Amino acid sequence: MAAPIEFYFDFSSPYAYLASERIEALAAKYGRGVDFRPILLGAAFKACGTPLLIEVPLKGDYSRHDFARSARFAGVPFVLPDPFPISTVGAARTLLWLKEAFPERANDFLHAAFRAYFAQGRNLSEGPVLLDVVRQCGLDPEQAAAAIAEAPIKARLKAQVDEALARGVFGAPFIFVDGEGFWGNDRLPQVERWLAQGPF
Amino acid sequence: MAAPIEFYFDFSSPYAYLASERIEALAAKYGRGVDFRPILLGAAFKACGTPLLIEVPLKGDYSRHDFARSARFAGVPFVLPDPFPISTVGAARTLLWLKEAFPERANDFLHAAFRAYFAQGRNLSEGPVLLDVVRQCGLDPEQAAAAIAEAPIKARLKAQVDEALARGVFGAPFIFVDGEGFWGNDRLPQVERWLAQGPF
Repeated sequence: MAAPIEFYFDFSSPYAYLASERIEALAAKYGRGVDFRPILLGAAFKACGTPLLIEVPLKGDYSRHDFARSARFAGVPFVLPDPFPISTVGAARTLLWLKEAFPERANDFLHAAFRAYFAQGRNLSEGPVLLDVVRQCGLDPEQAAAAIAEAPIKARLKAQVDEALARGVFGAPFIFVDGEGFWGNDRLPQVERWLAQGPF
Repeated sequence: MAAPIEFYFDFSSPYAYLASERIEALAAKYGRGVDFRPILLGAAFKACGTPLLIEVPLKGDYSRHDFARSARFAGVPFVLPDPFPISTVGAARTLLWLKEAFPERANDFLHAAFRAYFAQGRNLSEGPVLLDVVRQCGLDPEQAAAAIAEAPIKARLKAQVDEALARGVFGAPFIFVDGEGFWGNDRLPQVERWLAQGPF
């Protein structure tokens, strides 16, 4: 099987949520898996001097409208949560822990967490919400809470953010196929061409 | 015939160039025309505090790569010109003049000017290059040079930039269909759905 698609994202990115709902089917069509790699976009935005999208004059209003319209275009349930954006460090650490401890549950958690925030509007930055999502996935919330408070998981997330920056990741979703980077949900048609034909 | 698609753009925007090569065929498929409206993106970027894309750390390098890859994806000839970006006030005024004086030649000039810069790498901000493009289109360069130096054309461009900002335009291409705004070459699939089905 060919190397998996690497999918860098922040749980607080609406466009990453939309892409997360399609990327596995797209990858599978071409015999690929997906390696979901959570990062914290705040660090990338700081490196680029990027302001928060929704706070930019003109662009902010357009973006709110475009999130929802792009979701309808993709046929994916969406609400703009309040608060938005949020800190997603807990969700990111939980996913990294699961990828190691219960890899067969990791993607279930990923989708449940994204949907809790962007389809149900639940505040994923709050511990009880996060742990309820963990519970929904048939996992032990106490075990999760203990695991993500440990230094190794914290260090792993920091290392993944640093690695992403070193690879040129400045937004989400940021998708690598055979080392070629594609930024944004709206680059999925180009990702598909690359999967189908190779370099173009 | 339904109202034309309004296509706001700057002659210095690579993504607007790519979209300009497809938008008329897309519009015609749904019985629409295209009203090309040149603006100066510098004014919009100032209103939003947006830096130049290619000067942003990480994003700048990605963008250069993405311009060319998106052109190959679309099957449109492309070179990243040097210098880039440039002042496009002369080309914008020329198009506005033509839309009034020789409307049947306006879109020929638009495509010839975009291609001179983004397919042939000619510096469209230089008077002789601009006037050579005018000549190529079967128009009189001296008449063009005189017309675009007049106050009414200057005022018309300024008014169009102000109108664009008032409508929320912050980048290019910015496309309105029946009042609904779509930003970016990568929103053409959504533009097509709107043309085909109406609001979604």
